[in-house]
Amino acid sequence: MKVIMEKDLLRANTDQAEQNRELFNKNNVSVINMISSPGSGKTTLLEKSADSLRDYNIGVVVGDLYTARDAERIEKAGLHAVQVNTEGMCHLNSSMVARAVKELPLEQLDLLFIENVGNLVCPVNFDLGEHTRVAVLSITEGIDKPSKYPGIFRDAGTTVINKIDLLPHLDFDLDTCINEIKQINTGTNIFVTSTTTKEGLDEWCSWLKSITKGNGQEA
Amino acid sequence: MKVIMEKDLLRANTDQAEQNRELFNKNNVSVINMISSPGSGKTTLLEKSADSLRDYNIGVVVGDLYTARDAERIEKAGLHAVQVNTEGMCHLNSSMVARAVKELPLEQLDLLFIENVGNLVCPVNFDLGEHTRVAVLSITEGIDKPSKYPGIFRDAGTTVINKIDLLPHLDFDLDTCINEIKQINTGTNIFVTSTTTKEGLDEWCSWLKSITKGNGQEA
Repeated sequence: MKVIMEKDLLRANTDQAEQNRELFNKNNVSVINMISSPGSGKTTLLEKSADSLRDYNIGVVVGDLYTARDAERIEKAGLHAVQVNTEGMCHLNSSMVARAVKELPLEQLDLLFIENVGNLVCPVNFDLGEHTRVAVLSITEGIDKPSKYPGIFRDAGTTVINKIDLLPHLDFDLDTCINEIKQINTGTNIFVTSTTTKEGLDEWCSWLKSITKGNGQEA
Repeated sequence: MKVIMEKDLLRANTDQAEQNRELFNKNNVSVINMISSPGSGKTTLLEKSADSLRDYNIGVVVGDLYTARDAERIEKAGLHAVQVNTEGMCHLNSSMVARAVKELPLEQLDLLFIENVGNLVCPVNFDLGEHTRVAVLSITEGIDKPSKYPGIFRDAGTTVINKIDLLPHLDFDLDTCINEIKQINTGTNIFVTSTTTKEGLDEWCSWLKSITKGNGQEA
């Protein structure tokens, strides 16, 4: 009987992630791993960013437990989408991503988003081969989430504070939230966005454009 | 070298959960496992229910990755609280609960809430010894969450649709959401609540009172 232990699984995941990153670098595509709670607005953010990014070739790998709803929305927005159904698993791993990107025209892409399963805990330990991570926080979740789920906010090169249009209706202090994030991760970029009012989308999309074809680094 | 496999861990969890349930039954305390995404409003719902439940003895086991913020809030609301820090683990298990309830006056309690780690995926497979599960969904997460994360909504004896005060500001159809939940779980109780306007809190608290000391069954 062969027993595969968790540390072996994590090492195998990291090895495959390195291979993914080499493939992405060879194809000169910048890759973003997007992580958040369920319902933070990742898919809508990508839908609403599509128009500003129409001069670029964008791919999206969408992780979901079972459904293909998000990938259908992404395709309608004109982006290349591949759905990965994890069959109940709580995060994407690098093998799933390796299989998924075979379905995309990698050599044509400028930017690839990997939309992880909605989960603030488990995706943290799984390198997918991305160049950078984006944490998305909906302000409806409360200002305490960065402190309560620090792993994801510590590793994020960029943090998007989303659904800011709801600010007048919530007991939420934006400055306090930004300070909490900066205490955990001094270097993270922060964008404050709403897909309803479009606040902050220009800045977010300008940053996305600046990292295309730069393997995740700003040009 | 002893290798503990995942199925052994799950069986051990279920065995300990049965022991927990026996202990709860012996003490005639009804136990609720509350599961949701981060930021759905579980803690605030308990805070705001405390006043209506002041004639009852209520305990809360609060699961968090690292902080004790929620337990501090629960204590301020006058309930007995114990914090379980999972040190990064994505769900509570039955051993953690067994240790936690040693810190509570179980024999005096009418009702015990176990507030799980904010996560719509991983807590599903871990019986904690509860009598019933409550799924909490914030309407800010979108109507597609029950279909995208069916495990938790399938097992929930009760579903709370929370933050309903934000309905005018969101693209969210309540009837569609309720239909999606009922397609997954025809028998679930549904409460529609707001801790801001107090809508639905009377119905929610009446139901809680009806199950106290009944080992999770309505009197």
